[in-house]
Amino acid sequence: MRISDLSRLTGVSIPTIRFYLREGLLPPGQPTGRNQADYDEKHVRQVLFIRALTTIGRLDLASVRDLLAALDDPQLPLPDLYEAVNRVLVPPDGAIADPTELDQARSEVDRFVAGRGWLIQPDIPARDRFAAVLAALHRLGCEFGVDFFVPFADAAERLAVQELDLLPAGTTDPDRAAVVVRAVLLEVALGAIRRMAQEHIVRQRLG
Amino acid sequence: MRISDLSRLTGVSIPTIRFYLREGLLPPGQPTGRNQADYDEKHVRQVLFIRALTTIGRLDLASVRDLLAALDDPQLPLPDLYEAVNRVLVPPDGAIADPTELDQARSEVDRFVAGRGWLIQPDIPARDRFAAVLAALHRLGCEFGVDFFVPFADAAERLAVQELDLLPAGTTDPDRAAVVVRAVLLEVALGAIRRMAQEHIVRQRLG
Repeated sequence: MRISDLSRLTGVSIPTIRFYLREGLLPPGQPTGRNQADYDEKHVRQVLFIRALTTIGRLDLASVRDLLAALDDPQLPLPDLYEAVNRVLVPPDGAIADPTELDQARSEVDRFVAGRGWLIQPDIPARDRFAAVLAALHRLGCEFGVDFFVPFADAAERLAVQELDLLPAGTTDPDRAAVVVRAVLLEVALGAIRRMAQEHIVRQRLG
Repeated sequence: MRISDLSRLTGVSIPTIRFYLREGLLPPGQPTGRNQADYDEKHVRQVLFIRALTTIGRLDLASVRDLLAALDDPQLPLPDLYEAVNRVLVPPDGAIADPTELDQARSEVDRFVAGRGWLIQPDIPARDRFAAVLAALHRLGCEFGVDFFVPFADAAERLAVQELDLLPAGTTDPDRAAVVVRAVLLEVALGAIRRMAQEHIVRQRLG
């Protein structure tokens, strides 16, 4: 198909598709003449994929590029693919908290993680992100213990199980783009559900 | 105190504090001389507040400004304050999905919301955000029913109750800045917990 068909089928404008091509996010089509190329179903899927991640998924191009690189390697173990998603969703923050306060909050997080029996790497950004929140709340005098998060951690575990249950049983080679897009969009859906639930509870209790 | 003390106490650099002042995010201090002003405890809290929201909370300055405006009105009912937070955390997306697909997904979301008995406004961005995710998953062929989200919605409700329980019992005038900062940072902490839980489950099941 021509680029105009690719645009029509995906609902993504031709200039945006050209931009994806220029940026190397989308592989070039089969050349059919000067300034013309032929695109196929794979291009349709990839355009929809990039579009979903950058609009609804709210990822920047660098993050999309990282995810495409992970998808490009068919040998990458599935846990590493999930890790690539985790890295994109919670990138390292750099120095955003006072080191001493952060150290104290880090031990709290370590105890929380150990208490749950979570086997996770010691250096993933999510740990520091959680610690930075605890440290900031402490500093602002509106802290609460990590126990506050126990019911949510239960729900997060259940949800992760549900997410993995979406993989076809016994498959060793699931649709990896689907794995990525689901993981990213799920995060967005959950944020939206949280906001709706909160609005309901606030109205019920305070309205 | 002088601006240098304000900087020392908050750990925020003097140029950044001057930037907050210039942008009107921080009220000016009491003038004590040419190019000198006196700052107080309120300034300390406000600097920490802005800093926490823009770094760990990952909000842009426009969002912080919106939240400060909401905090500036002591008559604003508490539910409206929570709504201001919701608006900042899930801003309207504009047209990011195909209108027809979105309409279909919207009815799904409406049924989900009605099924939970949530009393929420019909036009809040979170509804459309959720619908946009469902529409995109559908389009990419990796959809799953809204029932998938039921356990998470349960957890989100419980968490909203827990969050309101943090308000001192019977108070009609809680610390509003604390309400805002907790709501914003909670969202960040939950994202981090989700990533940790997912890494654990992925390793347990696939690793």
